[in-house]
Amino acid sequence: MTIDYRLYLVTDETLPKDELLKKVELAIQGGVTIVQLREKSGNGKVFYEKAVKLRELTEKYQIPLIINDRVDIALAVGADGVHVGQSDLPAPAIRKIIPLSMIVGVSVGNPEEAREAELNGANYVGVGAVFPTTSKADAKVLPPGMLDKILETIQIPAVAIGGINLENVSMLGGKNIAGIAVVSGIMKANDPFEVAKAYRKLLK
Amino acid sequence: MTIDYRLYLVTDETLPKDELLKKVELAIQGGVTIVQLREKSGNGKVFYEKAVKLRELTEKYQIPLIINDRVDIALAVGADGVHVGQSDLPAPAIRKIIPLSMIVGVSVGNPEEAREAELNGANYVGVGAVFPTTSKADAKVLPPGMLDKILETIQIPAVAIGGINLENVSMLGGKNIAGIAVVSGIMKANDPFEVAKAYRKLLK
Repeated sequence: MTIDYRLYLVTDETLPKDELLKKVELAIQGGVTIVQLREKSGNGKVFYEKAVKLRELTEKYQIPLIINDRVDIALAVGADGVHVGQSDLPAPAIRKIIPLSMIVGVSVGNPEEAREAELNGANYVGVGAVFPTTSKADAKVLPPGMLDKILETIQIPAVAIGGINLENVSMLGGKNIAGIAVVSGIMKANDPFEVAKAYRKLLK
Repeated sequence: MTIDYRLYLVTDETLPKDELLKKVELAIQGGVTIVQLREKSGNGKVFYEKAVKLRELTEKYQIPLIINDRVDIALAVGADGVHVGQSDLPAPAIRKIIPLSMIVGVSVGNPEEAREAELNGANYVGVGAVFPTTSKADAKVLPPGMLDKILETIQIPAVAIGGINLENVSMLGGKNIAGIAVVSGIMKANDPFEVAKAYRKLLK
């Protein structure tokens, strides 16, 4: 499966299921190319139920679905992949329990983590936070030059994440990234369709 | 695999790895027949690392290892089973992604939940809280007669859990239970070996 990482939507963890689905569908119609379900509430049943519904939705639009952290939920709903951070299940352990067709993404914040992710068989990395963000309490902003250093270190696709909005996204122009990940910029928007469309226009 | 549920140890979530391992080993030497790793910290990496070590330890003593909630971690370490609550991944979703040899346990608090668990292919149920407990903030004590009602409803083994200690365990005598689950009674004990031995003696 070839993944189009250009406009990578990461869902917000605070939305109820129906609102989540409605916003994601509008965002996909606006041009989102891949969706990650991130749910930190700790209620596995709610997470699973959202994942089931998002699987139906993303299949309808032929968009890859990535599940954050919970590999079991990714397996149970037949997601296209999983995304993990440095405090989650390690990539080699994940590889042991998922089919070859599933992709693994890893959040990295420096060249060492990026190299390790690539060596461990990650299909892509999420690099950030490229800008200050409010979506993720523990996200640290990368020091100047760090994004470039990370991009020089690895061959696998990199997705920039963290505080990206329609005003600052142009600052990532010319970087060797496969895409940008947007969280609140789309999920908190009144009209995710128009916002996604605006991102796609700027990404051209 | 025939599981001996008689003295079912549920590990406490607050212990560092080395202390956890030491206490569990002493408890096994004292007579614990099955171990469940319960870890609610949300750090998947720490949970996984504890599970790897507990897998080694339980294999050494030929004791079944059950993982709470995280089916992916159970799969990754080759645990003997998973245990889930009413807010975790539903049993039918779990069955789809685990080998036939793995067992599934479900926490239940009334006959409806017990019947549903059995119909969904659970291998056993955890029934509680049979006594007031401090280990689990959201655990509600069963009303009088409820344990018997649940036990009458199902054919699969039932393990009583919640606030069981050396003083009150005799109140469960004569009940049609496969075993008792102990959390802080063993994990918070200075000498888990002696405490486990004392439970085994009382269970005779």
